[in-house]
Amino acid sequence: MAALSTCPPLTRSSVQAAHLRISKHIHKTPIVTCQTLNQVASTPICSRSAEFTPRASSSSIEHDIRPKVTLEESTANPQINIFFKCENQQRIGAFKVRGAFHALGRLIEMEGLEAVRRKGVVTHSSGNHAQALALAAKTYGIPAHIVMPRISTTSKIAGTQRQGANVIFSGSTSDEREAAVADVIAQTGAILIPPYDHPDIMLGQGTLALELEEQVQTLLKTNPDLDINSQSTSSSSNPEEDAGGHLDAIITTCGGGGMLSGLCTAMSGTGVHVFGAEPRHQGANDAERGLAARPPTRITRVKSLTVADGARTPVGLHPWGVISDAGRCAGVYSADEEQIALALRLAMERAKLFIEPTAALPLAVVLFNEAFRRRVVELLEQRNAAAGRDGRTPRKGWNLGVVLSGGNTTMEALAKIFGEEDGGDRARL
Amino acid sequence: MAALSTCPPLTRSSVQAAHLRISKHIHKTPIVTCQTLNQVASTPICSRSAEFTPRASSSSIEHDIRPKVTLEESTANPQINIFFKCENQQRIGAFKVRGAFHALGRLIEMEGLEAVRRKGVVTHSSGNHAQALALAAKTYGIPAHIVMPRISTTSKIAGTQRQGANVIFSGSTSDEREAAVADVIAQTGAILIPPYDHPDIMLGQGTLALELEEQVQTLLKTNPDLDINSQSTSSSSNPEEDAGGHLDAIITTCGGGGMLSGLCTAMSGTGVHVFGAEPRHQGANDAERGLAARPPTRITRVKSLTVADGARTPVGLHPWGVISDAGRCAGVYSADEEQIALALRLAMERAKLFIEPTAALPLAVVLFNEAFRRRVVELLEQRNAAAGRDGRTPRKGWNLGVVLSGGNTTMEALAKIFGEEDGGDRARL
Repeated sequence: MAALSTCPPLTRSSVQAAHLRISKHIHKTPIVTCQTLNQVASTPICSRSAEFTPRASSSSIEHDIRPKVTLEESTANPQINIFFKCENQQRIGAFKVRGAFHALGRLIEMEGLEAVRRKGVVTHSSGNHAQALALAAKTYGIPAHIVMPRISTTSKIAGTQRQGANVIFSGSTSDEREAAVADVIAQTGAILIPPYDHPDIMLGQGTLALELEEQVQTLLKTNPDLDINSQSTSSSSNPEEDAGGHLDAIITTCGGGGMLSGLCTAMSGTGVHVFGAEPRHQGANDAERGLAARPPTRITRVKSLTVADGARTPVGLHPWGVISDAGRCAGVYSADEEQIALALRLAMERAKLFIEPTAALPLAVVLFNEAFRRRVVELLEQRNAAAGRDGRTPRKGWNLGVVLSGGNTTMEALAKIFGEEDGGDRARL
Repeated sequence: MAALSTCPPLTRSSVQAAHLRISKHIHKTPIVTCQTLNQVASTPICSRSAEFTPRASSSSIEHDIRPKVTLEESTANPQINIFFKCENQQRIGAFKVRGAFHALGRLIEMEGLEAVRRKGVVTHSSGNHAQALALAAKTYGIPAHIVMPRISTTSKIAGTQRQGANVIFSGSTSDEREAAVADVIAQTGAILIPPYDHPDIMLGQGTLALELEEQVQTLLKTNPDLDINSQSTSSSSNPEEDAGGHLDAIITTCGGGGMLSGLCTAMSGTGVHVFGAEPRHQGANDAERGLAARPPTRITRVKSLTVADGARTPVGLHPWGVISDAGRCAGVYSADEEQIALALRLAMERAKLFIEPTAALPLAVVLFNEAFRRRVVELLEQRNAAAGRDGRTPRKGWNLGVVLSGGNTTMEALAKIFGEEDGGDRARL
């Protein structure tokens, strides 16, 4: 990576600069809306039919940092319009190319293309970052060495090799992976590009928030019916409110925190609230738990086998600096395994969006986390109280961006989660 | 339905009129492209890696109307750019709303809204037509009676009831269903709206071709890189060719034939070739087999349990009139169960499109049917020979519209197809 001392500050304008740098290498992914899911999101959990209610599971108590709320007590009724940002349609099937292209572009700017080509780049990843870095490196003609656990699925190994990367196998523990990376660096002089814990990666991932913000605004301008506040604003006498709807908040998956901290940075100063969503299973909600500690404390070790495999990793140091700042991050909420599976099912069966389990996390929180839903109601009331004082028309709900982080899963993995005849632990989901 | 004598003629301009009539009730569904699938489609079957090659199965001989071709002999190398028309993102999750809104709109025009409201409408369907008619009827405030087999999945029953329809259960045989429909008509005077065998339905389904044609043209104008012929046209000195790329052909699923015949009608006289795709399992390729007979003969009875359940029904009488006209339909090709399952997998895992098995049929033909691929090469050669005679620049490939007919499936149904531990027949797929 480029030396930390050379990194741009973590500000909205740095994200805008990152977007200019990478936009020719990435897709501007589409926005999708789904009437059925908006209706579910805008119905209290206690009033829904069974198909939209996860069965209560033991994991909903484990590692829950908030008082247990029964289904009957889940009466919060926020009005929510969801705008899915489809990073599952991004190149290599996940948002990770944004950070990879930005980090590599910055590195080249600092060290010169020839120097980086001579040294090459290296990372360890079994997932989307591996393919993202491989693609970015191939684009610039730079050798890429990717350390992957020997037990990685063949499709992920093949996908990374297809991008022209040199795949090096290691054991599965972090010590073994790091030893393999150190070997590569010793032998080749390759430069490490970590998956999330670096400002250049965070700024790159943050670019998707800029697109989301602009796409929602354009969409609401051309389709005012889509705006949850269109009725109230159209009767407003205030020309500023008539200017059209806009995004009120964003929620996204939080694993290492690169994307969440990037979105927070991109939206800082705009009034758009940015939330994170984590799996709760076996304590993978490290950011949520760390933020609840007094004083807030970063949790650095997690050993969870949650189905949301892209969010098993604890938050990195640099992302934590942003996520733990209440002025930039509005909070992190979690979902249990049943809730993730049901959100995944609804995204597929109802919105026809093919996503990986990790990408279903924010939808699971929006639909099923009562604490999150109460917080939305609270923020709506605060906003409208402020609007009342200023003589502005109150708005009845939120236009909420829900980031779908990726779509890299297999039919076999889905069959394991949803197969009825599978005897394993997942059969309950 | 409106009386046949009142139906507009089966011409492109009738489809254009249908589009004007229904467009405020339907979504203009998006177009999606996928580089990986374009590469696979443009690589001979014999040269592909294993993940893009279906295993040879016994069903590939059964009901195959063409001489058996081995994988090694599958060398046809058409250059194909796929533009997916995402009717899985259509209202109720399938193209069927187009025909339903058009047929109902025409009926109201002929009989008057009050008369239709008094009588109500009725149909028998266990699938997408049921929900489509229920939605259209609800929109106009017309009672809808839907006869469904008692064994229908609960999600389909619930989906139809959610649209406000009166669901009536019947046995599974066609005799039992028709008796139940006759009962409803006798008791209520309801008017039958059949799922495909009527010109108004065909004209309604055909509207998607008009959108596809225009969307591809717009897309190629703004993204000339997407055009498979961009290199040759950009070097062309002929200003007509420089005007930008356009659609060369469309392929779509053929069940009852309402959609296929509608697309053929919409494209007649435009030079765009329109193909159908059928499942071959247990003889469900009735249109393909019927067209191969001398003289071409409509096959009216099929009993197939193909995974492409939306295409188990034989072609109806009115659609057959169009499909059997070589001047309007360029041909019908089939895929076996393994090919359908692999196309379904690739649409999901690679293009991130959540579709039902029936919707994977045209992709299966494009990727895996050697006879179809040879036909594309032949038509390309004919086109370029004609261009040569006229002094126009030859074009190297086809911009091919691939219609994704719907996305109404469940995670359990997919788990049955792709689950590894399922002992049943599908485990091979």
